[in-house]
Amino acid sequence: MSEQDTIISTFGTAYREVAVGKIAILGKDTPLRLECGIDISSFPLAYQTYGKLNAQKSNAILVCHGLTGDQYAASTHPVTEKPGWWESIIGLGKPLDTDRFFIIATNVIGGCMGSFGPKSTNPATGKPYGLDFPVVTIADMVRAQALLIDYLQIDQLFCVLGGSMGGMVTLTWAALYPERVFSAVAIATSARHSAQNIAFHEIGRQSIMVDPDWCNGRYYDERKFPVKGLSVARMAAHVTYLSESAMHRKFGRTLQDREQVSFGFEADFQVESYLRHQGATFVERFDANSYFYITRAMDYFDLTENGGLKSYFVNSKVRFLVISFSSDWLFPPSESRLIVRALNAVAANVSFADITTDKGHDAFLLDVPEFFVNLSGFINGAANARGI
Amino acid sequence: MSEQDTIISTFGTAYREVAVGKIAILGKDTPLRLECGIDISSFPLAYQTYGKLNAQKSNAILVCHGLTGDQYAASTHPVTEKPGWWESIIGLGKPLDTDRFFIIATNVIGGCMGSFGPKSTNPATGKPYGLDFPVVTIADMVRAQALLIDYLQIDQLFCVLGGSMGGMVTLTWAALYPERVFSAVAIATSARHSAQNIAFHEIGRQSIMVDPDWCNGRYYDERKFPVKGLSVARMAAHVTYLSESAMHRKFGRTLQDREQVSFGFEADFQVESYLRHQGATFVERFDANSYFYITRAMDYFDLTENGGLKSYFVNSKVRFLVISFSSDWLFPPSESRLIVRALNAVAANVSFADITTDKGHDAFLLDVPEFFVNLSGFINGAANARGI
Repeated sequence: MSEQDTIISTFGTAYREVAVGKIAILGKDTPLRLECGIDISSFPLAYQTYGKLNAQKSNAILVCHGLTGDQYAASTHPVTEKPGWWESIIGLGKPLDTDRFFIIATNVIGGCMGSFGPKSTNPATGKPYGLDFPVVTIADMVRAQALLIDYLQIDQLFCVLGGSMGGMVTLTWAALYPERVFSAVAIATSARHSAQNIAFHEIGRQSIMVDPDWCNGRYYDERKFPVKGLSVARMAAHVTYLSESAMHRKFGRTLQDREQVSFGFEADFQVESYLRHQGATFVERFDANSYFYITRAMDYFDLTENGGLKSYFVNSKVRFLVISFSSDWLFPPSESRLIVRALNAVAANVSFADITTDKGHDAFLLDVPEFFVNLSGFINGAANARGI
Repeated sequence: MSEQDTIISTFGTAYREVAVGKIAILGKDTPLRLECGIDISSFPLAYQTYGKLNAQKSNAILVCHGLTGDQYAASTHPVTEKPGWWESIIGLGKPLDTDRFFIIATNVIGGCMGSFGPKSTNPATGKPYGLDFPVVTIADMVRAQALLIDYLQIDQLFCVLGGSMGGMVTLTWAALYPERVFSAVAIATSARHSAQNIAFHEIGRQSIMVDPDWCNGRYYDERKFPVKGLSVARMAAHVTYLSESAMHRKFGRTLQDREQVSFGFEADFQVESYLRHQGATFVERFDANSYFYITRAMDYFDLTENGGLKSYFVNSKVRFLVISFSSDWLFPPSESRLIVRALNAVAANVSFADITTDKGHDAFLLDVPEFFVNLSGFINGAANARGI
């Protein structure tokens, strides 16, 4: 076991190379069978850790990222050089206190920050997989993470938590490995991806496909990158992460660097300029094909089929906290209520907090004190119960 | 005055030619000065009429279309060969009864169904304008329509009505020409385009620009057409016209022509297949550059600046009906309430109906009995008051 391995990966339009931290090579002895039927072996999973594992190995928390997140939850991102995406809750004195807990954050398979994904080299061709990469599911992501937890020699995670897709991963952990999860916090998520959300994902994928530089997924070979298409996908997704009222508060109809409209198609309005910026920065850190694979994994996610959600949690000893945000229209509170109702129906141990905020879906990444208070309360209570 | 003039226009990917009905050539004597400062003269405005103008010329209703609508409100569309877009409310025995009223529907300037727009020939070059077409506003559209009403020798319209952008046009008619409007019905609309809606429009425009066949707006010269880009723009817009619950009811997670997911990027889900179809049919009837111009006109729309909404309606004698739909998140009921509050504040004659439906923004085009009842009641009451 080496925790100092790193791999070099390429990013963005200039194909610059960046080291992406700790890598575990998993499935060496026994391959992992994906839900599509394909076996993968000796595949990399990239991760970061924060804090120290205690002697009892009882204080490990697995943090699960959303669609475009990665393992840099609480440390500077090597590509963007920005703070980790969840430094609001991970750190000294924060809800996930690094003095008390050992935090593990992985990049999911299908991702592009060092984990096995469409940018990885296909041994059959010596070139990146592109769309020859197998379609992975949320359960596949979880099974790969479980191999990492084996590799780290941890039997049971004190807590699994995540927002958005990270919430789907969290619920799947509790469903597949109830004995390995002491507590679970599912935030701003759903037990199944809705028709509207599948529609938004399809729009994102289609907008990438419009870009001729996508090259049917083989842009790496051509040293091209679907900058424009992936930017539009990001812009469209970004709108769904905010709320109408937050956009109104933040931008309204304020003009950008001008006194009056240009009677043209420049970014007259601040909101246009902001969205263009979101698109332009995103393409420097994210892989277009990963966008295909991870959105697809979310589309396929459905814990309500086959016997229904309740069937996964009968006799579960996991302590659950479900959190929603009042202005989240991508994963509205009604979706969280469905989860809570199913857990209640099987007498599971579940708390629910619907946080009032106008910050929309992105609230789980932002400074929302009521969210922090609820999360801290639950984590501390569970930690006491676990004897941490 | 000839009502039988037609012009031939080209449509879709194959550039097939279609006759688009009645055309008035306006601004012959006095040019129309657009808000951007450019004068336009001898420009075509395409229109259709239904029913007969009475001897007093008191029964004319102007119907105003939304972003991608046109003059074929109540007759078969010559390009799609589908029924008119508002046959639900226009016709014998319907709320806008063609036995009682003379209905006028025009294609707005900037449009692509025969009215002066980016597809029109630029006399300076002998080629279509493309992005050299001047940016038009909602007020410009209204002033052009007013010239048509002059041309038809009608002093006062009995009613102006429309949904979505048509509601903006309606409000602007009442603001600019209060003496020429007896009643006005603004449906599923807003007094100013919101930040979120500007964002959605920007995404649509950007997705067209990703398509190399857009050719910077000069695709006509190349006999190309940005099929993929415009399709994605339409797909993204279409999602905003529905509601989450209607999409769930209509599609849920139902698969399309298959028993199980494909583990690929085909349209596995019905909602994906439906959206792709919406995009594919749209490009056969709509011009990509018109999509730029008309979205921009909506972005620029703001009756709340300069003295505020109230200032437009002080002492107005127009009878107003404002209608919203409970599940419309593109133009939510709160936007209609702002209009109603402003009208009430100046003691205008206004009724308000917030219709409960899960059909989203598109409800104004669909079979919603409570909407029909409210509209009929208002129209009949106003017609009695007008002595029709």
